[in-house]
Amino acid sequence: MHVLVIGLGLIGGSIARDLRRTRFAMRLSGADSSPAHAAAARRLGLVDAVAPWREVIGTADLVILAVPVDAIVRLLPELLAHLAPDAVLLDVGSVKAPVVAAARGAPRRARFVATHPMAGTECAGPEAAVDGLFAGALALLCDCEESDAAAVTTVERLYAALGARTLRLDAATHDRHAALLSHAPHVVAFSLALAALEQTAGDPNAFSLAGGGFASITRVARSSPAMWTPILRQNRANVLAALALVEGQLAGFRAALEADDAQEIDRLIARANAIPARQRPG
Amino acid sequence: MHVLVIGLGLIGGSIARDLRRTRFAMRLSGADSSPAHAAAARRLGLVDAVAPWREVIGTADLVILAVPVDAIVRLLPELLAHLAPDAVLLDVGSVKAPVVAAARGAPRRARFVATHPMAGTECAGPEAAVDGLFAGALALLCDCEESDAAAVTTVERLYAALGARTLRLDAATHDRHAALLSHAPHVVAFSLALAALEQTAGDPNAFSLAGGGFASITRVARSSPAMWTPILRQNRANVLAALALVEGQLAGFRAALEADDAQEIDRLIARANAIPARQRPG
Repeated sequence: MHVLVIGLGLIGGSIARDLRRTRFAMRLSGADSSPAHAAAARRLGLVDAVAPWREVIGTADLVILAVPVDAIVRLLPELLAHLAPDAVLLDVGSVKAPVVAAARGAPRRARFVATHPMAGTECAGPEAAVDGLFAGALALLCDCEESDAAAVTTVERLYAALGARTLRLDAATHDRHAALLSHAPHVVAFSLALAALEQTAGDPNAFSLAGGGFASITRVARSSPAMWTPILRQNRANVLAALALVEGQLAGFRAALEADDAQEIDRLIARANAIPARQRPG
Repeated sequence: MHVLVIGLGLIGGSIARDLRRTRFAMRLSGADSSPAHAAAARRLGLVDAVAPWREVIGTADLVILAVPVDAIVRLLPELLAHLAPDAVLLDVGSVKAPVVAAARGAPRRARFVATHPMAGTECAGPEAAVDGLFAGALALLCDCEESDAAAVTTVERLYAALGARTLRLDAATHDRHAALLSHAPHVVAFSLALAALEQTAGDPNAFSLAGGGFASITRVARSSPAMWTPILRQNRANVLAALALVEGQLAGFRAALEADDAQEIDRLIARANAIPARQRPG
């Protein structure tokens, strides 16, 4: 199978590594709008060759769109117009409703599957790509009723090769949950990092007092604006609603502390303790 | 050396394990106000014997006070009154100014050293105790000018045996930094967990959509109220000030998102990216 990966960063690069390793792809082409990323991907051997996507898409059996989600929305109609008739296109963006909306009415819409493999790190770029990033992860396939059954099956086989489980979900539900469980938490982590940086400015030793808890909470605050500004903007309404919930809980917690209400603080922490531990390591 | 550990939870129990393993303690006594914890500590072999602290403290060379920080403040004057003349007492609480204040004017104040070993997990109790919890960690020694030099040296040797580095710091600075870099972040994590639990109530599958970022941010939200309500209350003014900073940054981020101001969102994330990565694994 000839696979074209558009966007050779952490996600696209890691998919490419696994597709080569598992021999899912017999030929791997790559495209990236950044010449530096394209050169690095080639040098790292993530793909066999890099070229502008227009030069390769006609011969690709499977096209994986792994660019920031604003670029997914912009590129999708054009890619579908150039896709080979029997080929399959999938995106791996973290917001799904705007992507599904962008595909609506495009030529060969049914050959497109909107997906979100839930894995990643705070690192970015081809150098951040690793083997097995998706092993044990969950990949969401959204609004599959708008896709050919055969295209969905191909995508499910792809994720099985990556070691990921798949789950079908509507895009609106996906985006609402993702806002609460990923996007708003990133905004919280960014804000916590900003507060800590501002308060400790000029004191290079202050962060030696940061323990494992702080590191765990702010790890994702090193996630790149190139990926996250588009995510937050594309899922703006849901993220704002989720932030309002978090700010409300924070205000309630602060009020309990201002009142020095031991019982209420106990109750809030005990309730928060019900948050499930993560299911897989990493 | 005969060491008495008062409070046989995660921290006290882990210290006991290391003191036995490194042969720093030839005899290890333990005390815990919870009969269940005391029995578990004995069963797990964390200490040689458990008894009420009053029955043992007179023969202990070193006493480690590892109970919640409100209990530290309450117990400290009484413990100092019972301490053997040449013995050393240290606490390991996460808030230091109220502890130093509680010791002030007590008999044998100079034999007490206020410390905060910066290590831990979200788990609690004797069963959570592990070997090597403090390896590579930083232990802060506060207001050492109020302690005998020899007592401070004993405590430094103790932490060296645990594999921890030590740093001297005044209690007020410690508490201000700890509020920003640990206590307020815990409140944020609790609030995020509460928001997620409230929004997903009745949907047991919702958390399958939580990725590694959410797990990383909310891991500490499983920290116990028994430990954390006292920390937040004892460091209340600093925590409230730190929360105000975080809430201010969150409001600023939300405003940028409400305005759909891509440049400002980019700028905020890029600034947050400067948060240092953690220095040690775990």
